[in-house]
Amino acid sequence: MFESVEIGHKTSKSDYDEAEPLLRTQLLDMQYELLVDRPFSVVVLINGVDGAGKGETVNLLNEWMDPRHIEAWAFDAPTSEELERPYMWRFWRALPPKGKIGVLFGNWYTQPIRDRVAKVIKTSDFDQRLDDITRFESMLVREGVLLIKLWFHLSKDGQKARLKSLEEDPRTRWRVTDRDWRYFKQYDRFKLYAEHMIRRTSTGEAPWQLVDGTCPRYRSLFVGRVLLDAMQRKLEAVRNNWSNRQTAPPLPMPIDGQNVLNSLLLEQPLAKKEYKELLEELQGRLALLSRDKAFKDRALVLVFEGHDAAGKGGAIRRVTAALDARMYRIVPIGAPTDEELAQPYLWRFWRQLPRRGKVVIFDRSWYGRVLVERVEGFCSEADWMRAYAEINDFEDELIDAGGVVLKFWLSISEEEQLDRFKEREAQPHKRFKITEEDWRNREKWDVYERAVCDMIDRTSTERSPWTLVEANNKYFARIKVLRTICERLEAALGR
Amino acid sequence: MFESVEIGHKTSKSDYDEAEPLLRTQLLDMQYELLVDRPFSVVVLINGVDGAGKGETVNLLNEWMDPRHIEAWAFDAPTSEELERPYMWRFWRALPPKGKIGVLFGNWYTQPIRDRVAKVIKTSDFDQRLDDITRFESMLVREGVLLIKLWFHLSKDGQKARLKSLEEDPRTRWRVTDRDWRYFKQYDRFKLYAEHMIRRTSTGEAPWQLVDGTCPRYRSLFVGRVLLDAMQRKLEAVRNNWSNRQTAPPLPMPIDGQNVLNSLLLEQPLAKKEYKELLEELQGRLALLSRDKAFKDRALVLVFEGHDAAGKGGAIRRVTAALDARMYRIVPIGAPTDEELAQPYLWRFWRQLPRRGKVVIFDRSWYGRVLVERVEGFCSEADWMRAYAEINDFEDELIDAGGVVLKFWLSISEEEQLDRFKEREAQPHKRFKITEEDWRNREKWDVYERAVCDMIDRTSTERSPWTLVEANNKYFARIKVLRTICERLEAALGR
Repeated sequence: MFESVEIGHKTSKSDYDEAEPLLRTQLLDMQYELLVDRPFSVVVLINGVDGAGKGETVNLLNEWMDPRHIEAWAFDAPTSEELERPYMWRFWRALPPKGKIGVLFGNWYTQPIRDRVAKVIKTSDFDQRLDDITRFESMLVREGVLLIKLWFHLSKDGQKARLKSLEEDPRTRWRVTDRDWRYFKQYDRFKLYAEHMIRRTSTGEAPWQLVDGTCPRYRSLFVGRVLLDAMQRKLEAVRNNWSNRQTAPPLPMPIDGQNVLNSLLLEQPLAKKEYKELLEELQGRLALLSRDKAFKDRALVLVFEGHDAAGKGGAIRRVTAALDARMYRIVPIGAPTDEELAQPYLWRFWRQLPRRGKVVIFDRSWYGRVLVERVEGFCSEADWMRAYAEINDFEDELIDAGGVVLKFWLSISEEEQLDRFKEREAQPHKRFKITEEDWRNREKWDVYERAVCDMIDRTSTERSPWTLVEANNKYFARIKVLRTICERLEAALGR
Repeated sequence: MFESVEIGHKTSKSDYDEAEPLLRTQLLDMQYELLVDRPFSVVVLINGVDGAGKGETVNLLNEWMDPRHIEAWAFDAPTSEELERPYMWRFWRALPPKGKIGVLFGNWYTQPIRDRVAKVIKTSDFDQRLDDITRFESMLVREGVLLIKLWFHLSKDGQKARLKSLEEDPRTRWRVTDRDWRYFKQYDRFKLYAEHMIRRTSTGEAPWQLVDGTCPRYRSLFVGRVLLDAMQRKLEAVRNNWSNRQTAPPLPMPIDGQNVLNSLLLEQPLAKKEYKELLEELQGRLALLSRDKAFKDRALVLVFEGHDAAGKGGAIRRVTAALDARMYRIVPIGAPTDEELAQPYLWRFWRQLPRRGKVVIFDRSWYGRVLVERVEGFCSEADWMRAYAEINDFEDELIDAGGVVLKFWLSISEEEQLDRFKEREAQPHKRFKITEEDWRNREKWDVYERAVCDMIDRTSTERSPWTLVEANNKYFARIKVLRTICERLEAALGR
């Protein structure tokens, strides 16, 4: 696989001097084109063999282009804030907004390959992580990110010669550490797994580009052209609206009209007196659980979705009443800010993720993608169709990092909703809760129901199931929510 | 001073039950009013004696109001990311945007009083820190933040009784730690310094409110009313546009027309050949300095301001060419995002501050407040007049945290600017650099000059001086910038 970058590519000084000024101008022009209407962001991954010119190349790109709109990130040891969140959190923090270029050294490939070379993980785990990465990258690409993956290569002899020459020059001696030589001893293993990784994660939408690191001039021009070409193609695709189209047939409807929502018995009995007793008991249980020592290593993510006026706010308040104000945060999801709009849609949720020992409650959530955005046509069919798998991956990452993810759908009947709307409109200080939009949404009841059923079918997983809450009786609903949280937390904490 | 909150305030259950529903409704209504046009944010500081009901009160406020729009923050041990930035960084992170309420436990008062009680600092240092806080709070208030400072008090006997009763109840026993009893032993010292602190930091715009913590019912109603009253008054003030007016006379003009800008000799000789040699030498020096071990504990903040077309971008690129792309970030300052607009004006700069060992380069900066915003009337005279002191405080905080702050004003003559504008318009790939606005700004040359001179007079401090750069000859300007950086860094690193 590396044969083609080991044949000794070279560029003479005169060829370089001739080609460089034009390439430079083209790259700079392209960069300003990106800034005009900010059609996409560019993420450049820098990986490969030590000494193959990764750092030099990025420094050169910064010199060629306008460095104000390039951000280079190096990921060393994670900070305490990063350690307390899912593995990918630090990379989400570094994603460039549309119009900008982000260069990521030491990115999501670094740890898997290092772990495999050091035999910390087996090939099956390695493959698993590479598959996760492929899905993540696929999501980025479909969110409009231009992903350019550069693998800098040197032959074994080439690397050895390079490290030696760096060591001999007093100005560059500091750059060669013991670790570099230790890694060099593992060259063959590294190459073996790198090859495997590159093959497995080179997709049509985000292929690896192998860069021969031997000749600095060749390497520089090559990388410059790869970038320029990729940006030109992407710009053309965006300008011509060549977006990915959904080709799979739409989701089938159940033939008998039965579905998980309309088969719920929404009227559930629970009298106020009994409710009050249960409420106190469950809130006490939750209060203790949230203060349990074992919870300090976990994080709780609660998601509330439901029909308008189904009582999400009331249920949330019965939960937070059991918690200390310092440990939770409620995130109401409305229109995204302009900073959020310049990022992949999951970015706004990543930035809200709790640290260990904390609770974040989403009042509406990432499921907006497959509910309101689907129904109102705010995103394409292709976009919401892929969102199911993306959301499952996202929640898996939360859970892998010790998170407990609980999702509630609060369901009421059409008639019950009408009663509640009318009641709210009659009460002066609840009137703000009913808007024109709520009435409009009611007209799309069936379309929403369809979307909810699809959502539950596709995102209620073993690790992160949906809890459907019959909510015509709000007492019953609140108790079901609280009881589910207590039981799931007890299971998670081993209590 | 604490006499009035030690006289044993009490509210009977019947009085409480009568007053509570109305207060609750009023608070909730007020909160929704805040959300309508988001006129200001509310920051509530919670301080005082342990066991006086701080946590309970905040939990109650969350129950009374809509917890989705309140965020409570507790500040325990700083994270590694917080430790690497100025002390106040963690609090800037927690500031609520307009329309929201932020409740801050363990805020900027906690460390100073704890340090004074533990005799880590002397009274003079204590006072110094309280003065810093007063200025910081004054800035917040003028930026439109409603600041409510609550001091929860218990008499010595009261605290003892409270801790004991918490300990005796199995449900609350976990809340009393050894530390609480250790602190209790220092009650008298704590009270002494608290009194001093409260007197010194109770200003007309942000007074402390003493809360008698003994009776939970009294305490709850009292705090609820303090909040309600403060929000009502602030809302009235905003709606009636009762903003602070500048009463001091405007800044005087120099009588002889001489100023620091027009006395610069803008034409400075430096030939291209000499420039190239100096450039290489200085970039090499900077490259070594930035890789110096001592730099790992420092952070470098570079600020570039100057006339349009004075060559800021070119100078910045000559600096970054000496740095590794992984260690610096350039922050171009343009129009603020909507998230930034919902915060005090310095917030957007706080969020960009470098960690240790890193460089952040601001291409335009917080000085926009006293330049473009002053000249274009984007803020009131009162706003930019107070900004000088606020900016000095901000830079002091950076420097106190180990930062090196260097500020450059690149100055060109009116004629030189005209030549450069014309030249840029003639070059296709530089044309984007000249806009209508640039031509308009030229017409205000004198007004800008006035603003620049005032800025230099008021913000060129011993610790953070301005470097005025004669920039008609761009070679000379770049060398002066690089040399200044090298010299200041050498001094800071003791090299």
